[in-house]
Order: sequence, then C-alpha cells, then structure tokens
Amino acid sequence: MQDQLIIFDTTMRDGEQSPGASMTRDEKIRIGKQLERLRVDVIEAGFAAASPGDFEAIRAVAEVVRESTVCSLARANDNDVRRAGEAVAPAARKRIHTFIATSPIHMKLKLRMSEDEVLEAAVRAVRLARQFTDDVEFSAEDAVRSDVDFLCRVFEATIAAGARTINVPDTVGYSVPERWGGLFAQLLSRVPNADQAVWSTHCHNDLGMAVANSLAAVMNGARQVECTVNGLGERAGNASLEEIVMAVRTRSDLFPCRTGVDATQIVPTSKLVSTITGYPVQPNKAVVGANAFAHESGIHQDGVLKHRETYEIMRAEDVGWGANRLTLGKLSGRNAFRSRLSELGITLASEEALNAAFAKFKELADKKREIFDEDLQALVSDESVTPEHERFKLVSMVAHSETGEQPFASVVIADGGNEMRSEARGAGPVDAAFQAIEQMVSSGTELLLYSVNNITTGTDSQGEVTVRLAKEGRVVNGMGADTDIVVASAKAYLSALNKMGISTARMNPQYGTEQAAP
Amino acid sequence: MQDQLIIFDTTMRDGEQSPGASMTRDEKIRIGKQLERLRVDVIEAGFAAASPGDFEAIRAVAEVVRESTVCSLARANDNDVRRAGEAVAPAARKRIHTFIATSPIHMKLKLRMSEDEVLEAAVRAVRLARQFTDDVEFSAEDAVRSDVDFLCRVFEATIAAGARTINVPDTVGYSVPERWGGLFAQLLSRVPNADQAVWSTHCHNDLGMAVANSLAAVMNGARQVECTVNGLGERAGNASLEEIVMAVRTRSDLFPCRTGVDATQIVPTSKLVSTITGYPVQPNKAVVGANAFAHESGIHQDGVLKHRETYEIMRAEDVGWGANRLTLGKLSGRNAFRSRLSELGITLASEEALNAAFAKFKELADKKREIFDEDLQALVSDESVTPEHERFKLVSMVAHSETGEQPFASVVIADGGNEMRSEARGAGPVDAAFQAIEQMVSSGTELLLYSVNNITTGTDSQGEVTVRLAKEGRVVNGMGADTDIVVASAKAYLSALNKMGISTARMNPQYGTEQAAP
Repeated sequence: MQDQLIIFDTTMRDGEQSPGASMTRDEKIRIGKQLERLRVDVIEAGFAAASPGDFEAIRAVAEVVRESTVCSLARANDNDVRRAGEAVAPAARKRIHTFIATSPIHMKLKLRMSEDEVLEAAVRAVRLARQFTDDVEFSAEDAVRSDVDFLCRVFEATIAAGARTINVPDTVGYSVPERWGGLFAQLLSRVPNADQAVWSTHCHNDLGMAVANSLAAVMNGARQVECTVNGLGERAGNASLEEIVMAVRTRSDLFPCRTGVDATQIVPTSKLVSTITGYPVQPNKAVVGANAFAHESGIHQDGVLKHRETYEIMRAEDVGWGANRLTLGKLSGRNAFRSRLSELGITLASEEALNAAFAKFKELADKKREIFDEDLQALVSDESVTPEHERFKLVSMVAHSETGEQPFASVVIADGGNEMRSEARGAGPVDAAFQAIEQMVSSGTELLLYSVNNITTGTDSQGEVTVRLAKEGRVVNGMGADTDIVVASAKAYLSALNKMGISTARMNPQYGTEQAAP
Repeated sequence: MQDQLIIFDTTMRDGEQSPGASMTRDEKIRIGKQLERLRVDVIEAGFAAASPGDFEAIRAVAEVVRESTVCSLARANDNDVRRAGEAVAPAARKRIHTFIATSPIHMKLKLRMSEDEVLEAAVRAVRLARQFTDDVEFSAEDAVRSDVDFLCRVFEATIAAGARTINVPDTVGYSVPERWGGLFAQLLSRVPNADQAVWSTHCHNDLGMAVANSLAAVMNGARQVECTVNGLGERAGNASLEEIVMAVRTRSDLFPCRTGVDATQIVPTSKLVSTITGYPVQPNKAVVGANAFAHESGIHQDGVLKHRETYEIMRAEDVGWGANRLTLGKLSGRNAFRSRLSELGITLASEEALNAAFAKFKELADKKREIFDEDLQALVSDESVTPEHERFKLVSMVAHSETGEQPFASVVIADGGNEMRSEARGAGPVDAAFQAIEQMVSSGTELLLYSVNNITTGTDSQGEVTVRLAKEGRVVNGMGADTDIVVASAKAYLSALNKMGISTARMNPQYGTEQAAP
C-alpha cells in the first residue's frame, strides 16, 4: 500500500496574488467546486483576515465544498487565527493554516521579533487554531533562508502544540532539487516528533524548478505538496498542480506515493482558472498547454511510447483533453441547457441568472452554428449573467473602420437604470469603443493588457477578450466573450470597470506588504 | 577559474518542431543574429537534409553569424552528414551534430538495426563529419531508455572516432533530476575516454522538469546544455534557455561553472522568438514572463532580497526588462529610423524593404502617439515589409458591426498585380473579413487558433494577431500587426495563406516521422 500524497491547492490564495487575478466570491465558489471535482485534498480558499470580501468568499466556499478540506491562511496572531476559524467554520472538513517568518532577515526587518518571541507566537497561534479545528497547519515563512537549528526548534514546538501539518516554503523560489530534498531529509531526521506531522513543501518557480524541488521534497519524506492550477502565483508562480500530479502518477516506479486526484478533471480545471483569472496558458506548457500532446513526429508517442518500459504513458485523455464536444444547438431547450451546465459543474445563483444565461445562449446559437462546452463556460463567465457587482452594462454599439479613415465607434451603456451614449474615433475600432466608454465614465484607469483568444476553433468562434486595468496601484482583469471581437472588447472593458468600481470591501485586495506569505 | 558551461541553442531546430513554428530563411537570419548578440555558444540552425529550404536557411545563418558556432543536425548517414557539412561550410565556427537512436525500441522498430550496426553507423557518421569540421557532436537518441552498457560502448567509440561533444537526450521528457544526474555520473565514470569530450544534456519538459534535469546533469559533469528560447519545442518543449542561464548565474554558489551569455539580451530575444513563431509567453513564466518580476508584496524583493545571503539576486534589468523605451515619433526621419532598427539588430534585406518599412512607420506614427521598440519589431515582422513569399496582399478594407445586425466586411486584396474585392457577413467583423478573403482564395484551410496581444500598453497600442491555419497536415502561423484589430486580423490571415501557399521547397516542413530527433 502506497502512501497518500496530499494535494493542497492554493490557487485561490497564493495564485490570487498574481497581478489582477483577484477573484470575486462567486468565482471562488466556481473554482472551489471544480477543485472538489478534481478531488484535491485541501483547498486554501483565501486569507480571511486580508479583507471582509475574502472572509466572505472563504465562508462561501466552506459552505458549498463537502469533500475537500477548506482552509484559510492566518498570520500567527489571535485576530488572524480567529477570523480564519470563523471563515472555515461551515466546512465539512476545515483547516487553519498559520504562519510566521523564521529567517533572520524576516524576523529582524519585518517582524522585529527575537527567535524566542517568534517561537512563542507560533505555538500560541497553533494552540488557538486547535480550538477551532483539529486540522492545523503551520508554515515557517522563508524556511529556505532560516537557520536549520532554529527551524527544528520551531517545528518541534508547533507539532507539540498540535500542528498536524508542517509546511516548509521556498518563499523566494531560488532553491534547487538536491538542496531542497536535503533540507527535508535533515528536518525529518532531526525533529524528534517529526513522525507526528505530515510534512509539506511549498515552492516558487523563479528559476523554473518549483515542480522538481517539490518532488525532491517528496522523495525525502514530504507527503503534502502545495501547488496551484496552471502554476499561477506571484512572479513566476507556484509549483503546477498538474505537473506534480502527473509526474507522481507517470513515474509511480520512482515515487513512493500516489495522489487521490481525478486527473481527467485537470484540463477543465485549467481552463476554468484561466478564464476566471484572465491568465492564458502558453501552448508549450506541460500537461495543460495546447501542444502538450501534439507532436509532429508521430512515432515518438504512437510507435514508441506505446511500448511501456519503466513508466506509465501519459495520454491526452488521461488529463481531460478531448475533442471539443458539440453539446447544444439552436433548438436546445432550457432544461437541456440547465442540465448541461450542471454537468459542467456550473450552477447559477438564481432563476434570473439562468434566464439571462439562456437568453444569451439563444442569441449565440443564432450567430454560431455549433455550441461547445467552452462556449457555455465563456457564456456564464460573462459578467452580464452574473450580475453581482455590475454597474455598467453594454446596451448596444456600432463600430466602423475603413482603410484610410479613422475608425469610429458609438456605444450605449446602462449605468444602473440610466442609459448613456457616446461616440469616438480611435486608432482602431476597439480603441474607439474604449474612448467612447471613457467619455462617459472618466475612470482614470490605465490599460495594462489587452488580449484575445478564441474559445473554440473555426472562424465563427467566440473571441474571449481580457482587459487589464490599473488605477492607483489596484489591478483588475475584465473578461468579455462574443463572436464579435469589438463587442467582446467593450464588454471586457466594462467588466474591468465594474470590478474596479465596486467597493473595496467586496473585493479581495492584493495582499499588502505585511501580509505577504508564505 | 570556473568551467565554461556551453549554451547550445536549438530554438531553430528542435524549437521549430512546435506546430506552426516553421521559420523562413529571413526569420532564421534574424533569430540567428539575435542569438549571437545573446552570446550563445552554439546555434543549431536547422536540419540540413530535412528540406532544401532548411538547407538554405542554415547556410544563410552560417554566412551572417560570426561569433557563435553554427550547427546543423544530421542523421547518422552519409547524405545527411554531407548536407550538414555543406550547409555550415560558410560559418566562421561550424559544427555537425549527428545522431542515431540507441534504445532497444527505437533500434528494433524504427531503425531495424542491431546494436553493432548502430554503433558502426555512428562511428562512420562521426568520421565523415570530421572531414567537414573538427567540431563534431554525437547524440544517442532516446538515451534515457537505452541500455547503459551499450551507451557506454557507443560513446567510447564515437569519442575515439573524433566526436568532441557527446549529447545525452531525454527524448520523451519523463526523467527526474536524481535519475538524470545519476546517469551522467555513471557515464562519465564508466566511459574510459570520457575526459576527451564535452558532455551535453538535452531535456524535454513533459513533466515540467527539463530545467531541473539539465542542471542535475551539470552538477554531475555535463558542460553543455541544449535548450531553447522560451522553452519552445515539440509538446511541452525543451529546457528554457533563460531559466538555465539565470539559475546557473543566480546560484553560482552551487554550480561549478558559468555561461558566456549576455543576460541583458534575454528578454529582447524572448520577444523576437515569440513574435516570429506566434507562440506567446505566459505571464507567470520564469524570467521572461510579464509578471516574473512583478510582485504585489513589495517586501519580498525590495526589503528582503536586497540582503543577499547565499545567492545572487536576479533583477529585472539583469535579464533585459526595461520600461518601454520611447524611441521614435512622428517627426523622426529615415536615418533615425534605420539606425534604431540597426540598434535593435534588424537589418532589412534591401533599400525597398527599408522604404516600405519607413512608409509603414509614418503611417503608424499618424495613428499612434508614441512608437516603442516593440512597435518597430512588429512593424518589420509584418509580411508586407518582408516581401519574400508574398502572394496575397491587403489593399484596403471596410468593416462594420452594429448590435442586432450581422457584421459585415469588404476586403480588397492583391494577388500579384491583380486586385480582387469581396464582401461577406459573419459572426463578427473578423469572421466576416476571413469569409470575404475565403470567397476570393478558396484555400480549403482550417482555422486552428486565433489570438491577439497588444504590443505595448495603452488603448492606441497595436494589436498583434496570430492566425494558425491547417491544411492536409501542414500547420502555419501568420502574423499581422495594426492599430486596427480587424485589419491586423486580415493581414495575419493573408500572411498565413502566403506561408501555406508557397512551394514546400521554400519552407522548412515539420520533420516527418523518420527524422524526429533527438
């Protein structure tokens, strides 16, 4: 019987720290449900004390997820731990993940605390957390640069205080597998009560080695890996969940453990996270990139890989790649629509939302011959069917461009019940549409990124536009989908404005300096 | 004095095997020059025997690159080796890289050769290659699944025959660092004449560990790494050049070697390769991703990383990230334009091409307030200023869309001297434009991918559109840039049609089954 390798997903906590990747409560619910379908063991849904919005989002995830453990991050102080405990309270399985920095630099510059004070705070936080749940995790932030003797003391004390999981993060992403594996070997042999906790690794990818470092830890006794879908996360991101899971599975000849993940849900999860965060996945990304299983030299896989030798073959269908499935057409009814959404794991909040989505679907079916699952995903991601936070709405628009003339757009938007119209010329029809909108809203935002991907293949495919806006240090992504790319762009722009405009309490801010972790 | 780690770039050979990443001769020249500027040691420019087009492209690169070694791949047969020798003949430093498979499966199913026959072919190919150059590399394809005793025999014999570099590829990308490093330790200790060759590693990224595997080989004696810019390559790609280079540099405390790469050219090289191949780089990609140095929690880098401990800090400017540089404006003259291009490493083929580019620049400056380096890169990537292979050209177009009506486009294209016009309605203005073009050309292609990225920030930025078309198993990418996204789309579509339409001899095909390697 092989050990279980616990998959701890932090897409909604550490992944969310990517610029513009903030998620709304409803988005977190959708991702949470999908992660449960993927059968990850632990879902870190956020950082309860970071904002009231994040507290609410964690609580909402805790309410709907039944199988996976739901976790909140908390600094090692009473308030954070209590907030975390309250946020995960509704969960069937709940965890509090508390942390404090243990490196000399962090202790001196950030915390201004001595070793003994840090140790005491860690123990106190773990004890308090145990009053809310038996499942408590402790992280030593910046473990990679901490003194190993001190690390051993802190881990021994926190395990004794009741921490069941001990997490060792490479916060700066500069380690290499040999060193990282060696650190685990050392910790596991030196901490006297090491066998009373599950050891966990949390790696960042600044030098491209997050996955290899995590697996080196596993080879040396770690039994939990903290990772994110698509390797999302600050800077170069975290270890990719999909690569960890498939490496352990494919090389079961080498790894002394297995995960409980349903790998066929990997690609759908990847697409959902990409859609919600506006972060594309590059084609040459392992496992979930569009080319991961596309190869020109057929014999490589078909002729040769077929002959298994030392490892399991990874096949596209194993990770959930499939041909685009034609699911619905013009004549499909409301029930077929609702049940397909539910098969895709999408439950709309209300009958009104379902009606709005169904109307959009009918509209789309008029323009596009075939409706695929991806189209449905895009459709419900569209702000107009998830009306929370919506202030501005696209009513209608005209765009015209002609070689030799300046492109023109006329846009009508609704602001609450109030309709406004404006027209503008620009460098292109999209620019013209954005200018027209700005004439009405004067947002003062800066456009950081504009990108379009088609959702399925074929020229009548919907374009999915991501617009990233910045204002006074805040960054948000807006998404819009339509078969008309100019319309999709206007929707995305309004979606970003809506996200930017809502009160900060509703949004989960990018964590400030003091809360960066771990 | 530390050892030199040889950086062998195979972006134009293994990277080119990515679907649709075929490069024209001119594109290879541009990338070759940029790689020289990056100071890679060896540039594998292609596979001379694969096609007359690739032969010409390698030869052209060999003619212009003076500092880096220029290399061609060759199977271990007389014809391939001779073609490789002829292709690299003009180079100041030239290498032939010959390979044959050594795994039981490949020898039996693909080659239908015995061990002795494979060994003999390898030795013969190396000897023949030495008649063209002293710098000969030998690769054992699928080394990862080869019998180690046999590998040792083959390597000993090929070193004795004159191979100066011995490359060990993980062709299927399933190895892990510990194993991969162990294989190198074994080979270096068991091959009696191991000290007479440079050992090289070539890793694929199917499980996300290509970089870590390569570096494990380096830790165990390898002194050449084969890698690609942006990790481009078949399936999940090859080891990323930028990650290898920056890991070795940042962790000079661990690695017993250094590279000669000018890291400040990393980001410009990444952008050039991305533009030419149409392969985007995801924001959370290490080193070259847009977020690699963006972090919300400022203290991570500013407060803490500043205090160096065991490693060098990687800074954005070290790898060539800089603010977009405002380089030219509306009033800039032809000489300023030419000299800025030349600073960017772009030399246009003829005065006509320069004139065409300058005219485009003036046109762009009318529409866009500020012209950045990225705009210039896009401008010269635009097919219309690199007129080789150009059959179809966009003359003018009109696009109109209006909520509630079917979008409309009217397109005029030139086919040689002949102008044609067509109009169509579609699901969006881009679809309508594509339909209008198809009415004129009836290409019979299938649209696989459509994506747009803005080149710089701001709403008047140019959109860079990539269109991937497929027909009868061939896949090509077309690129177009314009401030008007619909116009950029039409240009990209025509560019793809032009690439698809030119005679196959001019194009470098995706290598067929028998040529897949190593």
